[in-house]
Formats: sequence, C-alpha cells, structure tokens
Amino acid sequence: MDLNKLLKARSLAVVGASEKPGFGGDTCRNILEYRKDLSRVYFVNPGRETVLGRKCYKSLSEIDDEVELVIICTSQATVCGLLREAKTKGCGGAVVFASGYSETGDEKGKAAEEELKSLAKELDIAVLGPNCGGFNNYVDDVISFAFPVEKRDRKGSIGFISQSGQFCINLMDSSEMRFSYAISIGNGKIVTLEDYLDFLVEDEHTKVIAVYMEGVQDAEHFASCLRKAAEKKKPVIIQKGGKSEKGGKIAASHTGALAGSDRAYDAVFDKFGVIRADDMQEMMSTALLLSTLKNLPEKAAFASMNISGGETAICADMGSTFGINYPDFEESTLKKLKSMLPSFCTPGNPLDMTAALCYDSDLYAEGLKVVMDDPNIEMVLIGITIQLVVADPTIYNIYHGVKKVVDQGYKKPIAILPFIEGTRNRDVAEKFREIGVPILPSPKYAFSALSHLSSYIRYDSSKRELSLAVPKKAPAGKRRALSEVKSKQMLMENGISLDLGVIVTSREDALEKAKYLTYPVVMKIESDDILHKSDVGGVILNIKSEDEIGKAFDTILTNVKSRMPEAKINGILMQNMMPQGTELILGVKRDAQFGPMLLAGLGGVFVEVFGDSSLYPIPLNKNEAYEMLKSLKSYKMLTGYRGTPPRDIDAVVEMMVAISEFARKNKDRLCELDINPLFVYGEGAGVGVADALVVLEE
Amino acid sequence: MDLNKLLKARSLAVVGASEKPGFGGDTCRNILEYRKDLSRVYFVNPGRETVLGRKCYKSLSEIDDEVELVIICTSQATVCGLLREAKTKGCGGAVVFASGYSETGDEKGKAAEEELKSLAKELDIAVLGPNCGGFNNYVDDVISFAFPVEKRDRKGSIGFISQSGQFCINLMDSSEMRFSYAISIGNGKIVTLEDYLDFLVEDEHTKVIAVYMEGVQDAEHFASCLRKAAEKKKPVIIQKGGKSEKGGKIAASHTGALAGSDRAYDAVFDKFGVIRADDMQEMMSTALLLSTLKNLPEKAAFASMNISGGETAICADMGSTFGINYPDFEESTLKKLKSMLPSFCTPGNPLDMTAALCYDSDLYAEGLKVVMDDPNIEMVLIGITIQLVVADPTIYNIYHGVKKVVDQGYKKPIAILPFIEGTRNRDVAEKFREIGVPILPSPKYAFSALSHLSSYIRYDSSKRELSLAVPKKAPAGKRRALSEVKSKQMLMENGISLDLGVIVTSREDALEKAKYLTYPVVMKIESDDILHKSDVGGVILNIKSEDEIGKAFDTILTNVKSRMPEAKINGILMQNMMPQGTELILGVKRDAQFGPMLLAGLGGVFVEVFGDSSLYPIPLNKNEAYEMLKSLKSYKMLTGYRGTPPRDIDAVVEMMVAISEFARKNKDRLCELDINPLFVYGEGAGVGVADALVVLEE
Repeated sequence: MDLNKLLKARSLAVVGASEKPGFGGDTCRNILEYRKDLSRVYFVNPGRETVLGRKCYKSLSEIDDEVELVIICTSQATVCGLLREAKTKGCGGAVVFASGYSETGDEKGKAAEEELKSLAKELDIAVLGPNCGGFNNYVDDVISFAFPVEKRDRKGSIGFISQSGQFCINLMDSSEMRFSYAISIGNGKIVTLEDYLDFLVEDEHTKVIAVYMEGVQDAEHFASCLRKAAEKKKPVIIQKGGKSEKGGKIAASHTGALAGSDRAYDAVFDKFGVIRADDMQEMMSTALLLSTLKNLPEKAAFASMNISGGETAICADMGSTFGINYPDFEESTLKKLKSMLPSFCTPGNPLDMTAALCYDSDLYAEGLKVVMDDPNIEMVLIGITIQLVVADPTIYNIYHGVKKVVDQGYKKPIAILPFIEGTRNRDVAEKFREIGVPILPSPKYAFSALSHLSSYIRYDSSKRELSLAVPKKAPAGKRRALSEVKSKQMLMENGISLDLGVIVTSREDALEKAKYLTYPVVMKIESDDILHKSDVGGVILNIKSEDEIGKAFDTILTNVKSRMPEAKINGILMQNMMPQGTELILGVKRDAQFGPMLLAGLGGVFVEVFGDSSLYPIPLNKNEAYEMLKSLKSYKMLTGYRGTPPRDIDAVVEMMVAISEFARKNKDRLCELDINPLFVYGEGAGVGVADALVVLEE
Repeated sequence: MDLNKLLKARSLAVVGASEKPGFGGDTCRNILEYRKDLSRVYFVNPGRETVLGRKCYKSLSEIDDEVELVIICTSQATVCGLLREAKTKGCGGAVVFASGYSETGDEKGKAAEEELKSLAKELDIAVLGPNCGGFNNYVDDVISFAFPVEKRDRKGSIGFISQSGQFCINLMDSSEMRFSYAISIGNGKIVTLEDYLDFLVEDEHTKVIAVYMEGVQDAEHFASCLRKAAEKKKPVIIQKGGKSEKGGKIAASHTGALAGSDRAYDAVFDKFGVIRADDMQEMMSTALLLSTLKNLPEKAAFASMNISGGETAICADMGSTFGINYPDFEESTLKKLKSMLPSFCTPGNPLDMTAALCYDSDLYAEGLKVVMDDPNIEMVLIGITIQLVVADPTIYNIYHGVKKVVDQGYKKPIAILPFIEGTRNRDVAEKFREIGVPILPSPKYAFSALSHLSSYIRYDSSKRELSLAVPKKAPAGKRRALSEVKSKQMLMENGISLDLGVIVTSREDALEKAKYLTYPVVMKIESDDILHKSDVGGVILNIKSEDEIGKAFDTILTNVKSRMPEAKINGILMQNMMPQGTELILGVKRDAQFGPMLLAGLGGVFVEVFGDSSLYPIPLNKNEAYEMLKSLKSYKMLTGYRGTPPRDIDAVVEMMVAISEFARKNKDRLCELDINPLFVYGEGAGVGVADALVVLEE
C-alpha cells in the first residue's frame, strides 16, 4: 500500500472542522498552530462559513483542488460516504478518528471494520485508524494529530509508531523528543503497523525508529521490515506491551491483536537486533541517545567522568549492574590526569575528578581531551545533574569545556548523565543537544539506554540468519504424537544422525537381534499411544545378557498390558545403551505467529528449578546456535566443570542447526519436538539422542 | 555526643564571612536567603566592616552573645585556634568545611584529623566535617549549607544524611524534596554517621530517614540505631555506594571508611527492615512516597487506574516485574465499574478506564470511590503523565476528582504514576502533594518505590532478632583450621547434635571398634593438617565387612603417607555411613564489621553454578532461619521435588539456630564454619552432619 498520499500528502481537508474541543476543533487548532504553509489545507463543515478565521467548505466536492488526504473527524456513520466522495477528489490517504469498530470486541464493530477495510482496498485509499489519534509528519509539515499538546518545536529524526494514542501524547509532552513522524495507528488493521514500519525503514529522514506495539498482523512482513532495518543499520526500538500475563490480556483486549507468546517476541527481537524497551521512558531515552549522537561509538568502551566520589561510585555500581564496559585507562592517561588533578585523587575509570577542573572551561576541556585521547575509550559519559533553575555556574563551565573539545574536531561521542530526574534546564539541555551531546535521563534509564547502545553496537547482522519460518497456515489445533521410533525415523530421514535400534515383536526375535547388539542393552515399549514409557514400566535399562533380554521382553509386555491394556503396541525397541553424558534438552516449540522456535537447556534442575533455557527463532545458523548455548547460565557445565573435561559443543551446535533445518522444512505441520535427553560427550566424541518425540498436526 | 548545639543551635557565627563565591560567601548568602530570624546570626572576618550589608565582627571574642554554633569557612590552619576561641563563647557545635584531613590518604592529613578529633572531644564540641558541605535544619531554620542552590521552600519531614556533599546539592536541586534536616557529613569520623542517624531516629519532626553512605564507623551503634528505627516504625532508606568491585574501591578511597562486604550490608539491611536504594533517584522517590502519604496502606494491595490500554498494560507488566500485588476486584466493584464505563471496557485490576470519566471531576470521583470501596484494595495508583506545561485539561478534572474523594474522608492512600520523566508541572504537583498525594517518578523508579513500600509494610520487627554479634576486637588475621573430629567436637559441645564416630589408631583397633558400628561404614583420615581429605585418598566410603575395614585402614594410611608425608596424623575416623539425603551447605562467614553471618544453600550446582545462597546476620531466630531457606530459588527441592517427599525443614531450621548461637558465643574467635554437606532427610527424620570444618583465630 502506498503511504505517500497519507503520510506525505501535499493537500489535505479536515472534515468536521470545528472550533469546539474534540477531534474537529483540536485537529484544526493543531494544523493552524504547527503548519507553516496553509495554502492547500481545507476545512469542511456544512454548518459553518468559517472555522478559526478560515474559510469553511460545505463539502469535499466543493473544494477546487486535489485532496490527497482527508482527515475525518465526524462519526462512524459518515466515514464510508466521505471516503467515496474524497476519492473523486483524488484522495489516496485518510485519517479516521471515529471509534466503534473492531475495538468494541462485538460483531457489529468487527463487521464495520471489515466493510471499511474492503472499501479502502477498493478505493485504494491508505486509511490510518479507525480509532486512532492521527499523525504528524514533521519533515514535510503534515499535521493531523488530534490532541492538544504544548506548542514546541518537535522536528527531529525519530520515527514513532504507536498502538496507543495516549503514548503519542506522552512523548509529545516530553520537552526532549524530536520526531520525523509520530503516528498513532489506532486499530491498525487496514494500514498496519508493518506498513508504517516499512515506510520508516525506507524514509531517509528517520534515523531511529521507536515503536509501541501490542501485537503484529503479519509476521512475515514484520520480519522483512526488521531485516531491512538490520541491514541498513537503522536502530529499531520496540516497547511491546503484555510481558506479564495480566499485561498480555490487557494488550489483547485493547487492540484485539493476536498476541504471540511474549518470549517468542524476545527471541525474534534478539535475532534481528531490535532493542526492546520495558516502558515508554526507556524507549524514549534510548531513541534520544541514538538519534542525538552524531555518530555511534565504534566499540562499547565508556569513560565515566564525575565531579564527586559518591557520583563516581554510583556510575561504577550502576555500570556493573547494567553490564557497561569501562576499560582501564592507559598508563600515560593516568599520568596526565594525576598531574592535572589534586594530589589526593586516584585517577581511574570511572573517574572522580573532584570539582577541581570545573572552575575553568579551558582546564575542563584539557581534562576531557586527555580522556578522549585514550585509545581504550570510545565514548565519554559526563556525570552532572543539570538543575531546572541553574544556581551553580559549574554546568556552564562544563558546557563550554565540552563545546571547545567538540569544536576542535574530537569525534568520540559524549553524553551527559544526571543523577536525578525532574531537573534539566531546557536552555542548557538544548545547547548540549545542538552540539550532539544528549542529556540522558536518571540513572536506571540512562544505564539501560547505554546498555542497549552497547548491545546494538555489538550486534552483527551478517552473523545471523535474518528470516523466520512463518507457517503458511494457522495451526488447526489437532495434534498427533509419534512413537519414539517413528519420531527418530523422521529425524533420521532429515539428516539427523542417531542410533535407531531395532523393533522386535517376540521373545525369539529379541534373542536373535541381540546378537547384533553390544551389551549393555536397553529395551523400551514402542507404541504411538504411550508417551511416558517409564510410567507404565515400559523401559528396562542396563540389560547385560541373553537371559536378561528374555526376561525383560516378558516383563515389559506384562507391565504394559496390565497398566495400559488398550494401547496398540508396535513391538519393543531394542538398542545399545548409550554411555551417560551431560544431559541436554533440545526442543522445538511452535509459536502461533512466528513459527518454530528452538529451545535449549541442560537437563534436570537447570531447566526445571532455575528456568535456565534459551529460545531462538528457526532458522538459525551455527553462530546463532552457539550464542544460544553461551547465553545459558549453566553453559559452564559444558566447558569443563569440576574435573569433567569440556563437552563436544561443536556437535551440539551441529545438531541444533540440523533440528532447525528439519523444523523449517516442516513448519506447517510440526507442532513440537523434544529430544530429552541428548547426551553430550567429551570433545570429539559427539552427542547421542537418547529419546525423541515428534508431535505433528493431524 | 550532644548534637543539639550543632544541629539546633540557637545562635551562630560564620567565620570567614565574605561576599565572594566560595565557602564564606555562599554560606552567608544562603543564611540571608533562607533564614527568617537573623537576630542571633553573626558574621566574622577581621578584614571587613560589613558583609552583604550586615555588620561584620573582627573575631568571635568580639561578639556579645553566646555562640552555640561556629561555622568555620577558613582554611585548615585556622581551625583549632578558632575552636578554642569559640569554646570561650559557649560553643557546642562547629561546621568545618576545610579539607586536607584524612581524605587525602596521607599521614599528614590523618594526623591533622586525629588532632581535630581530640580537640573536639576535649572541648566537647560536636564537629560536623571536616571536608563537609554543611547542614540545613529546616525545622528550626538553622542554615549552614555552603553551596548555591535555587531558592525554594524545602521544609518537610525527610531527614537526609550524606557522605557525599554533591548528593546534598543534587537532592536540593530536585523541586520535590522536602527535608527536616539535610546533613553533608564530610569525613564523618568526629561526629559520625551513626550519631546523626541516632539524632534523626529520635527527632519527632523527621518522618522518614534517607542516607547516602559508603561505610560505617561503629557497627554496634549503627545496629542500635536501626533497631530503634525498626521499633518506632520510622522508615530508613539507605543508598550505599560500592555495590560493585570498582564502586567499592571508589567509595573506600573517597571517605576512607572501612568498607564491609557489600553482601553483608544487604543482609544487615534485610534484618532491620532498612530499604536499600540503588541510586539517588530511587532513594529520593521512596523517601518522597513514604513522607508524602498521610498514612501508609495497611497491606500491599494496589489498584491501578489508567486512562488508556497501553498505559494499563505497562502498569501490569511493570507491576509483575517489581512484584506489585494487584488483587482482583470484588464482583460488586466490577459490576459498578461496568455500569459507569463505556460498553467495550472490560474492568479489571489494573483498570483501563479509558478517558470516559476524565471529562467531569464528579464522574471521576465516583469511579475512584468505587475502586477505593473495594475491600481488597488498600492503595490506589492513578496513571497519568502530568505535563510540564499543561495543555490538556484532563489532569485538572482528575485532580478535582481526587480532591473530592480525599475531602470526603476517604483514607486509603493514593499516588500519581506518570509514564515519563522531565514533565511534572510544579503547581499541579504541589496541589496533589498538599492533599497527601505524591507524584511518583517515571515507572522504573515508581515501581521500585512501590516495591520498597510493599516490603516495608510486610516487614515485622517483632519476628526478628534485632541485634548483631559485632566482634569486640578486629580480626588479627591468623587462622587455624581444626580437623573434622575436633570441629565436630566443638559443635557438639555447643549443643549441635551429630554423630562423632570413633578415632582408631591401628588396624586391630579398627576391627575391634567396628563391632559397635553398623555397616556400611565410612573411614576418613583425621589430621589437623589435611583439609581436603578426598584429594589425598583419605576417605573410603561404603565399607561393608571386617575384611574391607582392614584393607581400608591400610589403604588410607598408605595414600596419605605417600601424598602428604609431613602431615601429623591423629588416627582414622570411623563411623556409620549416613544415608544419602538432600545435600545442604550451612556455613558461617565472618564479616570484618558486622561479625558472623550464616550462609545457607543447596549443595552442588545450586551454589556453584547459580550462586543460589542466602546470607543473614547472626544471631537469628527460627523465623529468620525459615525465611532464609524460603528465599532460595532451590527451596522447592526441599518441599517435595519430582516425587521426593518433603524434607525435614524444621530440623534444618533448628540446626541453623544452633549454629547461630554457637557463632554468636564465639564471635571473637570463629573465622569460619562449614557444614558441607548437611544431609536433610524426610519430614521427622532430621538431618545429618556429614562433614564439618571450624576455623578459629589463633
């Protein structure tokens, strides 16, 4: 869908223009207040001659111009008729504020939205909304936002898409946010979140994309937008509502979007290098940091410069909590600092400079340059709280010091780190912003933003498989489990190496086949109906002789027949017993939206008590598989724990990639796969699939 | 030390009064700006006739009045002489800004501080500093703070003590903080942090105490202050610098305070119900929340009321992250809300009210009352961002709605929860504050503050043993490990029940003693010199016959003699082999400041891979021991995991209390105790000490 006539419309009409509070009045007031060129702006209201001093048209048809965008402030009943009329004026975009559509949750609302969607398609009009707050395009001065906010210059390079109108208002209320576009998408089922995302990824005026979302409409389209953004190195920051169970329900009832599992979103964001923010403030601060810096640091290597010991300690502590890397300074840097600072200072990183250099901007600039010249440092954090009303001139000395350094061509980025919120003198903040120095928010948010920046710099899209195995059809819900042997056969046919064993159907058969096996041997009941074989006495391990084989055959059959008399039995599976290795669990879970996801974790208490598992979207390559394992807390069990030699991690990685490929090929029918346990042996000795379960769609 | 003549001085003199920037000038300006009654304020400077339009005295002696407090703005060299002179005028308190004392880290500075300390004691003058920023007593209008800050009413009920002067400035820069006292204590070795804490605990004008600290001087005094505060139910919020390794070094070099282990601080704070804040902002927000509310909620049961779905989802998600309890509303509440809200709303907690009730304050008040009347709810959180410049009248409708409800006598506390920082119209915030409704900071800080409030309400000092076993003398550092038998003997003599076994010294002896044991038996080398018995082949388990006993005796001796030929051997310990139980580790670590701490965790990977252990100060009672176990992630291993019946938790708790008592009695000589493993059996079957190690001071 072409969004240019919506978001970059060269002419527009407000239908339902008014002077009263409400959609019509607020939109007109916003347009008059913010838009410079009013020559192709038209107000329409059959009941008025003028609105806010401007000519008012009786109808769209009366306007003697092409109307690319129609902003419909009137009620639901009028919308379809207005769109048809607008089409005759060359309209290609519409904003629909009216509610009463799918957000009501009832059949009437849903039908109304379907009707609107069909009509939009028929007329080829890109409809923002319904039930939305409008949008502002600050690049070309196209204003349609319907809510009253303080007058202020908000033009910048952050493209913001929101499934909540209120969040648009909140971000506009911040004195710091600066947008290329701010779009309140409303129900977002006609033009979707993915469409706006696509537009902003392509838009050259948008440096950073920020999104508040509750769900996606089209996972494939979503993934393709994220891939493009990753390849273009355009940061995408997403706050997704519904992390918690309660939050998920609220998000689902709010927009009626299909809420995929929240953990699946985390996994998808990880793959595509999307920055996930916990709340508005975190999203905003991260977007401001990334958009204000003239260039991002090359490595996540920070220097922290402060004027008091207490603040320096906080920077050290918060840095440690948020994983911020403060490299040691070079000896020569320490020496220079020592010569500039009072005798009792012990220079280090983080650095307590005391206030000694703050009384003179030249001195401050010299100190800053010493730190910036250190080859281990790529970005400098200056810890200072900018008061709301500046009573202490220190801040000006620091500002002029920083400006001198920037003017002299020093390129390493700098940010200001205040220690409390609710301060931030606007003029001072603006001066810093103009020289490319962002003012971070209070420490928890500042350090989350720096942590996001660090991850973003470290992310390398070339090492990732940037696609998803989105199923072509929605799951039908009917599931069929395969027996162990059938599960293993299916895996084997897909190139996953394992010991299949043999199925025997009589005592004699068992004794005959045993000749080809090596003791000890394991025997297990083989049946499509029995998922938990041990629970019915269907497994006997460590069988060491012909004699024991015979007994085991009888025992298993007797056990199963008495405990699950109805189960259809294919026979008894017999195979060499695998040596014990480190137990891993590998599995595939199917996410309703994003398709199969690989799950990995160590067996036993690791997953069950500590929830120590890793989930990642399929398909994945070796590098991604390796990173999955490394992200486990129990990873150290694989690298040589308490005298156990290192495990064959390469073999695990190969197995993970093979499973990924199997799941990708079977994305439309694979519901679940469990390899539990996978025994992992020492380096070079590989892995062994001890048990496997495949569950398919019927 | 009596702090009244310092902090509540009725007359004061500024020595070094001046008009220039710096201590003298800034202090005089602050006094003139903030203090109403100047009748007993004297400026002293031999070189001036007047300062800032006020008479200036040549010397303290010239003042014809008692001078309770002397504020010394002059250099280090003048301090002692001035104190002696001040004493002749009845002085009992002094503020010393000068630096050059112990903070320099050199001998000269330390000696200067010792001299000042002795003199202060001799003259009985309570000295704030040196190297401090002064203090303000907002209750009695005693001003001595030396730094320029914006003029504003800061009188309130938060008592703030800071080991960082810069943090005092930061908090004064906040437009929200309101203090009873704000004290920058500087080096804090003459009048100590503990002395100020004691003063504020007793002070009736101080409702909440907030502290920035880097270390304590006197752990016993510190604990007694915290006990008093806990018993009086006066909240103490502490931000302690030096959580991380780097931060610890910076904090130590900043004030030179002995930094106890950070984990020990956490444990002490837990015992005494101290709220620990991660940074200034968190400390400030928590203090503001607790001081602004007219009464605290009786239970941590919150309702969240919002005007948009997105904001409601954030409240649900953040609430879940921070452990905030949102109870379900009663059916009757849901019914009433349903009748008031638009048809498409699904009432719940958190509640998305939409903006429907915000256009009319009466309607809003009705909605709020419905929620407040719900018996499951004890406090209400209203989610709304207050803009810096109010463009949307909604906020006034909400304010008037809230005010109506408060005026009608509704007592359940209310707080406002904004979604971004850098907003907060001061007038609106002040209006809310006046009716006892605090404005929380941005969500991460807001929810940490609410989480602290929740813990504070749940904390019950009557269930804790409110003391510490602070050693009478500092550890000398020489350690002596006891053998297993000697360790166990010492524990046994202290009432800890265990199976001591027998020591045998010959093969024959072993065979004779074996008659009184039950097979299987275990044999271990017994030597003060061998701490890791298994490593030298000194342990043989599962011995099942006389024959094996003889062999084991020989094998152990041969092993040990070949691997540790120099070890002095007491014999071989022989005992019934304990049945395998769930393995616990119980230990005692000695903190240099706070004395012995009990450590508990499950054996194996739980402690080693996941660091899942709990540390708590000794002495402790059964309730505290039980809470320690419950705080472990692996606690579920004790309550019945995967078919294992529940373990004998009562027996573990008794063992923990017995160890606590042992460690308390031996606080001056016990360096370390390890019981590893302690086998825990099923309910009623008790515990078994499998191995023990006691390390004492020489």
